[in-house]
Amino acid sequence: MKEELLSLIDILGTITFAISGVFAAIQKKLDLFGILIIAFITAIGGGTLRDMLIGDLPVSWMRSVTTPLLILVSAVAAILFRKIIGNFQQTLFVFDSLGLGFFTVLGIQKGITFGFSPGICIAIGTISGCFGGVIRDILLNNIPLIFRKEVYATACILGGLIYFLLLKLDFNKNWLDVVIMAIVFLVRILAVRFKWRIPGIYNDKMEM
Amino acid sequence: MKEELLSLIDILGTITFAISGVFAAIQKKLDLFGILIIAFITAIGGGTLRDMLIGDLPVSWMRSVTTPLLILVSAVAAILFRKIIGNFQQTLFVFDSLGLGFFTVLGIQKGITFGFSPGICIAIGTISGCFGGVIRDILLNNIPLIFRKEVYATACILGGLIYFLLLKLDFNKNWLDVVIMAIVFLVRILAVRFKWRIPGIYNDKMEM
Amino acid sequence: MKEELLSLIDILGTITFAISGVFAAIQKKLDLFGILIIAFITAIGGGTLRDMLIGDLPVSWMRSVTTPLLILVSAVAAILFRKIIGNFQQTLFVFDSLGLGFFTVLGIQKGITFGFSPGICIAIGTISGCFGGVIRDILLNNIPLIFRKEVYATACILGGLIYFLLLKLDFNKNWLDVVIMAIVFLVRILAVRFKWRIPGIYNDKMEM
Repeated sequence: MKEELLSLIDILGTITFAISGVFAAIQKKLDLFGILIIAFITAIGGGTLRDMLIGDLPVSWMRSVTTPLLILVSAVAAILFRKIIGNFQQTLFVFDSLGLGFFTVLGIQKGITFGFSPGICIAIGTISGCFGGVIRDILLNNIPLIFRKEVYATACILGGLIYFLLLKLDFNKNWLDVVIMAIVFLVRILAVRFKWRIPGIYNDKMEM
Repeated sequence: MKEELLSLIDILGTITFAISGVFAAIQKKLDLFGILIIAFITAIGGGTLRDMLIGDLPVSWMRSVTTPLLILVSAVAAILFRKIIGNFQQTLFVFDSLGLGFFTVLGIQKGITFGFSPGICIAIGTISGCFGGVIRDILLNNIPLIFRKEVYATACILGGLIYFLLLKLDFNKNWLDVVIMAIVFLVRILAVRFKWRIPGIYNDKMEM
Repeated sequence: MKEELLSLIDILGTITFAISGVFAAIQKKLDLFGILIIAFITAIGGGTLRDMLIGDLPVSWMRSVTTPLLILVSAVAAILFRKIIGNFQQTLFVFDSLGLGFFTVLGIQKGITFGFSPGICIAIGTISGCFGGVIRDILLNNIPLIFRKEVYATACILGGLIYFLLLKLDFNKNWLDVVIMAIVFLVRILAVRFKWRIPGIYNDKMEM
C-alpha cells in the first residue's frame, strides 16, 4: 500500500512539475517545442542529476517510456487548458509543493538504499526536489528562483533533518515518508502564505 | 563502407560544430582561450551529456585524443580564416545541419545498442544533436536558440520518428542512416530557407 | 608526508573556493541559503564534473561528510567575518589561486590513475580547477569570468603541459606536484598583478 501511495504521488509530482515548466516557458514566450522541452526538464531534472551524481545509470526516466509519456500528456493538457489552470494557480502551487515533498523523500530513500550518510542523503533529497526548477530557470536565463525569493530548498533540508531525527527515535516507518512529505509540503505552503523570507546578507563594502 | 561514411560525417560534424562555437564566441568578444573552450564544448557537448545520462563512461572524447585535436585544429583554422569563412555562412550552416543529422543518428544507434525503447532512443538522438548548442548558449548567457527561433530539435525528433517507422517497415538497413541524416538535414535547411516557425503559445493572463 | 601536504592544500583549496562563492553570492544579494548553496557548488563543482565525466561515481563529496561540513563551516565563517575578510581580498585571492593549483594537480593525477592520455589528463585537471567557478557564474547569471578577463584556465593548462614535460624528463616525482601547483599559482598571481590578458578576436563583419 505504501508503494502505491508513493507511485501515486510520484505521478502527481511529475505532472505538476511538468505543468509548472509549461507555465514558466509560456511566460518567456517560447515556441511549442521549447515549452515541451522545459516541461520535460523541470519534471525530470532533479532525479536525473541525482542519478548522475550517484552513478545509478542510465538515469531513471530512460528505463521506461512511462515518465516521458506522462510528461508529454501533462504538458499538452496544460497548454490546451492553460486558461482554466491559469485561474487555479493556487491549485497548481499546492501540487507543486506536494511534488517537492515527494521527490525529496524519494531522494532520501535512494540515498539510504545506496548506503550514504544522513547528511549526504539530505543533500540528495534536496537535489532531487529542487534541481528541476533550478535548471529550468537557468535555461530561461533567470537567476534561479531558489536563490532569490522563497523558502524552497530549505523546506527540503528541514524535512530531511526531521526524517533522520524520527528515524533515530524509532518512528513508525510506515508513516515516516508521509509525515516528511507533509512537513516539506506544509513548510513550503506556510512560507509562501505568510511570506517567510530567509534573510539576505548585505555588505556595503562588497557592492560595486 | 558504411562505417567509413559515418566516420567521415562524424569528423565533418565535429569540425562544423567547433566552427559554429568559434563564431558564436567571437560575437560575444571572448578572448582566444574562451573561444577555444566554447568551440570544444559546442562540438562535444551533445555526446558528453548523452554518455553521462546513459552511463557509458568515461565519456567518448576522453577515450582518445583524436576528437580534442580535431576540434583544436578546426577552431584555430576558423579563427585564422574567419574573414573568408565569414563570407560563407551559408556553407557553414550547411555543414552544421549535416552534423546535426549525423549526431542524431549516432545517438539513436547508441540508444539501440544499449537496448532502450524507441521513444528514449529518439530523446537520446535529439540530446546528442542539440545539447552542444544549448550549453554553448547557456555559457554565453543567451536563452538557447533552440527555444526561440528555429526548427532545430524538431528536425531531430522528426528524423528519429521516421527512423523507427522505416525500421518497422524493414527498410534497407544499409541506407537507413543516410536517409535519416538527409531528412534531419533537409528539414533544418528548408525550415530556415522558408522561415518555418513553430507557433508560440500566448496567454494574456500569464504575461506580466 | 606528500599525502599530508596534498590533504592540507585540499582543505585550503576547498575553504577558499567556498569563501569565493560566498562573496560572489553576497554581491548578487542572494539570501542566506542561496549563499550557502553557491559556496558549496563553487567548492565541489570542478571535482563533481570531473568524476561524472570519468565515471568515478558516486562523486567524491558524497563518500564522506567531511567535505560538506568543511564547506559549511568555511561559508558560515566567511559570512560572519565578511567585513574583516573583505579587507583582505588580496589574501583571499592568494588562497583561491592556491586552490586552483591544487585541484589542477589532483585532477591530473586522477586522470593518470585512470589511464588517460596526457592531453586528456590536462583537460581533466583544468576542468577540476575551473568548473566550480564556471557553474557559480552560470547560476548567478553572469558570463563566466573565465571567458572574459583573466588568465585562469590558461594557468591550469600551462601547469598541465609542464607537468608532463617534467615527467618525461624524469623530474623528481616527490616534488613534481608541488612545483606544478607553484607554477599554476604564480602564473595566476602574476597574470593579475601585471594585468596579462589573452587577446580577443575581433571581426567587424561578425558584429551586429
